[in-house]
Amino acid sequence: MPGNSFGQAFRVTTFGESHGEMIGVVIDGCPAGLVLDLDFIQTQLDKRKPGQSRLTTQRKENDRAEFISGVFEGKTTGTPLTAIIRNQDSRSKDYDHLKNVYRPSHADFTYDQKYGHRDHRGGGRSSARETAARVLAGAVAQLFLKAHQIEVAAYVSQVGAIATNKNYSEFDLSSTWSNDVHCPDESVAEKMATCIDDVRKAGDTIGGVVTGVVKGCPAGLGEPVFDRLHADLGKAMLSINAAKGFEYGSGFSGVEMRGSQHNDRFELRNKMDLADPSSARGKGDALIATASNLSGGVQGGISNGMDIYFRVAFKPVATLLRKQVTVNQKGESVEVAGRGRHDPCVVPRAVAIVEAMAALVIADHLLRQRLVSVKS
Amino acid sequence: MPGNSFGQAFRVTTFGESHGEMIGVVIDGCPAGLVLDLDFIQTQLDKRKPGQSRLTTQRKENDRAEFISGVFEGKTTGTPLTAIIRNQDSRSKDYDHLKNVYRPSHADFTYDQKYGHRDHRGGGRSSARETAARVLAGAVAQLFLKAHQIEVAAYVSQVGAIATNKNYSEFDLSSTWSNDVHCPDESVAEKMATCIDDVRKAGDTIGGVVTGVVKGCPAGLGEPVFDRLHADLGKAMLSINAAKGFEYGSGFSGVEMRGSQHNDRFELRNKMDLADPSSARGKGDALIATASNLSGGVQGGISNGMDIYFRVAFKPVATLLRKQVTVNQKGESVEVAGRGRHDPCVVPRAVAIVEAMAALVIADHLLRQRLVSVKS
Amino acid sequence: MPGNSFGQAFRVTTFGESHGEMIGVVIDGCPAGLVLDLDFIQTQLDKRKPGQSRLTTQRKENDRAEFISGVFEGKTTGTPLTAIIRNQDSRSKDYDHLKNVYRPSHADFTYDQKYGHRDHRGGGRSSARETAARVLAGAVAQLFLKAHQIEVAAYVSQVGAIATNKNYSEFDLSSTWSNDVHCPDESVAEKMATCIDDVRKAGDTIGGVVTGVVKGCPAGLGEPVFDRLHADLGKAMLSINAAKGFEYGSGFSGVEMRGSQHNDRFELRNKMDLADPSSARGKGDALIATASNLSGGVQGGISNGMDIYFRVAFKPVATLLRKQVTVNQKGESVEVAGRGRHDPCVVPRAVAIVEAMAALVIADHLLRQRLVSVKS
Amino acid sequence: MPGNSFGQAFRVTTFGESHGEMIGVVIDGCPAGLVLDLDFIQTQLDKRKPGQSRLTTQRKENDRAEFISGVFEGKTTGTPLTAIIRNQDSRSKDYDHLKNVYRPSHADFTYDQKYGHRDHRGGGRSSARETAARVLAGAVAQLFLKAHQIEVAAYVSQVGAIATNKNYSEFDLSSTWSNDVHCPDESVAEKMATCIDDVRKAGDTIGGVVTGVVKGCPAGLGEPVFDRLHADLGKAMLSINAAKGFEYGSGFSGVEMRGSQHNDRFELRNKMDLADPSSARGKGDALIATASNLSGGVQGGISNGMDIYFRVAFKPVATLLRKQVTVNQKGESVEVAGRGRHDPCVVPRAVAIVEAMAALVIADHLLRQRLVSVKS
Repeated sequence: MPGNSFGQAFRVTTFGESHGEMIGVVIDGCPAGLVLDLDFIQTQLDKRKPGQSRLTTQRKENDRAEFISGVFEGKTTGTPLTAIIRNQDSRSKDYDHLKNVYRPSHADFTYDQKYGHRDHRGGGRSSARETAARVLAGAVAQLFLKAHQIEVAAYVSQVGAIATNKNYSEFDLSSTWSNDVHCPDESVAEKMATCIDDVRKAGDTIGGVVTGVVKGCPAGLGEPVFDRLHADLGKAMLSINAAKGFEYGSGFSGVEMRGSQHNDRFELRNKMDLADPSSARGKGDALIATASNLSGGVQGGISNGMDIYFRVAFKPVATLLRKQVTVNQKGESVEVAGRGRHDPCVVPRAVAIVEAMAALVIADHLLRQRLVSVKS
Repeated sequence: MPGNSFGQAFRVTTFGESHGEMIGVVIDGCPAGLVLDLDFIQTQLDKRKPGQSRLTTQRKENDRAEFISGVFEGKTTGTPLTAIIRNQDSRSKDYDHLKNVYRPSHADFTYDQKYGHRDHRGGGRSSARETAARVLAGAVAQLFLKAHQIEVAAYVSQVGAIATNKNYSEFDLSSTWSNDVHCPDESVAEKMATCIDDVRKAGDTIGGVVTGVVKGCPAGLGEPVFDRLHADLGKAMLSINAAKGFEYGSGFSGVEMRGSQHNDRFELRNKMDLADPSSARGKGDALIATASNLSGGVQGGISNGMDIYFRVAFKPVATLLRKQVTVNQKGESVEVAGRGRHDPCVVPRAVAIVEAMAALVIADHLLRQRLVSVKS
Repeated sequence: MPGNSFGQAFRVTTFGESHGEMIGVVIDGCPAGLVLDLDFIQTQLDKRKPGQSRLTTQRKENDRAEFISGVFEGKTTGTPLTAIIRNQDSRSKDYDHLKNVYRPSHADFTYDQKYGHRDHRGGGRSSARETAARVLAGAVAQLFLKAHQIEVAAYVSQVGAIATNKNYSEFDLSSTWSNDVHCPDESVAEKMATCIDDVRKAGDTIGGVVTGVVKGCPAGLGEPVFDRLHADLGKAMLSINAAKGFEYGSGFSGVEMRGSQHNDRFELRNKMDLADPSSARGKGDALIATASNLSGGVQGGISNGMDIYFRVAFKPVATLLRKQVTVNQKGESVEVAGRGRHDPCVVPRAVAIVEAMAALVIADHLLRQRLVSVKS
Repeated sequence: MPGNSFGQAFRVTTFGESHGEMIGVVIDGCPAGLVLDLDFIQTQLDKRKPGQSRLTTQRKENDRAEFISGVFEGKTTGTPLTAIIRNQDSRSKDYDHLKNVYRPSHADFTYDQKYGHRDHRGGGRSSARETAARVLAGAVAQLFLKAHQIEVAAYVSQVGAIATNKNYSEFDLSSTWSNDVHCPDESVAEKMATCIDDVRKAGDTIGGVVTGVVKGCPAGLGEPVFDRLHADLGKAMLSINAAKGFEYGSGFSGVEMRGSQHNDRFELRNKMDLADPSSARGKGDALIATASNLSGGVQGGISNGMDIYFRVAFKPVATLLRKQVTVNQKGESVEVAGRGRHDPCVVPRAVAIVEAMAALVIADHLLRQRLVSVKS
């Protein structure tokens, strides 16, 4: 009933506030015997951490995962895997002036309405700080997926009005991390960086889009009728701070197409014709695949073995380094201004969060799929 | 773990296949003492039923809800509320030629991959027939919401490339049902109807968008951090057959905005200034509201008392009345052609489903909100 | 949140009241491809049905399962398996005199307190009639377990003060069904029958104990720390109408033992030395087993491969065929008397329910165990 | 699906192993605004801690709760309430000789069978150390219940063959903590202490019974049909290490009674006649109560407003300070002997755990009851 857990078989529960001593996550359901590659986990945390470049907040949070349960001799034991990240550099005083103020498009007002009181320091539980715990858990999920040859990746595909016009399949996704924007389209990335920098100098913020891809996902994942694979992916993505929209496969653009254009017809392929035959699923050399993939790898809510891809829209960050008029708890008109260290654009850091949430969904459904046959 | 249930406090489980004897739904958690307005429930079912006009499939399914448990003397008892709808006019023979065929962009292939075998008749469980059970359950949720002055509504806002350029607030939403397309913008509705008719004659199909609105929702609904109100709405909508995308508030268009444009500042209002003061929330005549509503009524995942609105993208229906090339279970190339009675466009009938799923989400969160205070 | 579902992977939801049109059950999570042996299911239903002998109520309920979803060509499809049982011979009028009365030790008062109103006819939802749906679902679970060489059985081990002094392992459990009491100890069964008959003639009722046994359960089932196998078995049994207690292995008698007497030491055995080698688990001819089994087949909440056995206490049925003084809704003193057709002792019919609930627990945990390893 | 969470509305997840850095608990669903009385929480932890007297293990664990999330200015915020207890005095070396050994009646063998490998130090996750986290969470639940005038209490009612013959209602339960055994029957407590001491000197262990009581519980709690209040209590108690049985109200002794003896007839009472009128439920001076209470405060699975009472059987602790023969992982016969510091009898320390688990169940159902009415 409470909302701090995600997943059913691979189940994570995050805890902690922006200005508490630590944040953390309990993963219940991570299979036993998984080798915990701590370097990989740290790499994922570093992708999300603030202070990476001039494009992100200058807060320094050198997030390090400390596993406090569920690991023995480097492997998961099957019991709850718990990790914490200690909070550092949290200047609670920075927030005293906001104690009774309802900042525009923040969660101040709604938390007060919901709970009657709130921890106002840095947004408390509503802070994006919480997503560090998700990235940590998602990295564990990714390790589990890697053991099944499944890879998740994400990248920035749009900042404001600047968008790459290339498809995910045209990119070498490993190049995503070679620039500060985290867009694999190098020339577009530069324009995005300039845009973010301009916005930052204006004390303003800007939105963006992150594209996610899952490769190597076997056919059969997803549970009809409510827990469709893309529905769980959608919920996962929409649960990320500042997310405003989700689409997969043809998405909103599919609306304008005719069925005769949109349908992905099946065909028989030879694995050896694939660019990467090792990733092919199915027995023998022949496999059934779709000629096009407007379905986005999911049909009837179940993965069909093709690449899964989707897009997540993020709004501009609500905290501005300029004055805004709003009201306080008493309904009095007041002025607020963001101070200090905030992201002018959320998407460069959201890439790691999108990867994490995608991994959590796929890991959960990979486990759930084990339950469907009489013998297994 | 299995995926046929939705909601946590107001929990529905649907069952049944396209060509079984009946479909149905168990609602566990519907509060006791609710007067079951059977006429209203039938009205909602009628909105979804096929055969309403030339724009929808000509199958005749005169769906009637039969409540078989949980009602006593016209009121809910608090025990499982179960209702069935008997299947009629199901011509299983129509599907014999499809037994071993993987129709393009249907769930045939994925069901086989997932379960090892499947009921191929009319799509079995993957058929949109299942959504009749959702509409039934959603109608019960709507009755519960009405007792709390909350109204949900939906309408067609786009068919193919034809879209209304008006905002939901410009419409009298009761006019949605005055035309066959179910778009309250009468002149646009006519163009949409022509488009659907043309597509139908061509044996083809077309996509569309349904816009949903929730009015009168109190502030405070939604559970951080994963079960945000809009995340659960998103999952609900994406779980509808043929859905490809979801956005709320500014959605994907918010991506291009700056924070200074996008932020909804709070202000103090006098209820008496509202068009409909009776719908205002909060004590006394004063209430805190936002001047704009790009947030779509949800901030930090929690409702803020403003209207909630969102859009759902639907792809063109996969069944075409023309020949398509695909493969069968053996991987052999085969030709298929839809026969008989199919929807050229899903959105006119999807409106009722969107309303139902929205009602289920809001009812669930309205109940869950009762749990957050120490005394209540 | 609502309480009408049981199990997590093999999940059943029952619905229906004593005097409604039908009762039923949705099984969500039954693996695909299971051959539904309808004769076996009917056999289990017959074991629970009333009117079997003079020892049980004379109501005639010729319960027949009708599967209305989830089966195709005789096998489960993996989608919700739903079955109904139509109510017959329900004489609602028999209950009119009880409408406002709070019968002693019934659920009349508590349902009113909980829900504000209730279906008083035959106990409504609180009627033991609901357990027919459990037996139906349990029979499906038993079919699933049989496919894994796991057998569940139960029998009456005590009626009033008359108890068998033999251990379950001394019985041929197939003889359980050869007498009306359903106790495999034939001479004791006769005394029990006489006792029940005497009690019945006196218009009174009597309690009893049902012993349950699970054979062939592999080691490893059960989830630490809350969902221990015996804890879930305990909850399952205590959820049966009239259950007052549960113990497994040494149970309450283990309290008086010393650790040196109670500990089950491990030893290496040769499968060929077993009475039934085919039931032995583990690779090769050698297997680790315990010399004694006071643990009842469960250690640390997880099955150890030995027989699981437990006992369930049932109170005397609350409905008496004699006058009792109590109060009505207004608090006025009133007299009530049971009429017609009631069980003088619940245990002969409870045997099938105990089997069903045990099967549901083991099936659920057998599925859940599939989730614990990295590769499977 | 995984088993480390308990409760649905008031939901706790424990984590940590005996010899890790810390153990802890996340409470998701604790209502906002609860004043966290840290002294009370510490008092409960102290009741469970080892080293209290010669009757318990001499390990020193000065358990202190550290709240790391969910509290602001002394009150719960409604977000996850997380607390940790740092492990101290854990001598991992003490367990090196047990690495490959399957100790009799421990969880060594079953954990290996379930997970493939295990943390053998001090039992790892299967250690009773985990219950400290439950006591911590239970203390928070007790604070919530106190705000609703509900009290839970427990005491030792039997050690080996030595049992008090008094009913819970004959005791001043505050005297439970005045002796080391935690039995309020002072003269019996002395005999129990002697018994435990004798057993300890013999390097042996002994079982016992803990009786639990809930006073002030309003009528209406408990969810038919599976989540009956006593079924959830039973599961809670059976999930405690070493528990072998549970009974409530008349329990196993009710089996031998006739319905005419066992039925609790309702009567109208005047609150002023009660020993403690302030605890009476219901409007006005009149209330409906039962003349006797063999039901144990629960009828049809729902509380009826009378005291709830139950008994939990605990087996003798498996670790003996004497040699035992068993096998190792290879199936070789080996000798083991407990070393150092173990409890000769679990019940004196189990009292606090029984209180905690009872509080968790009642708190969960108190919240769940808020969901049953149309308006609230």
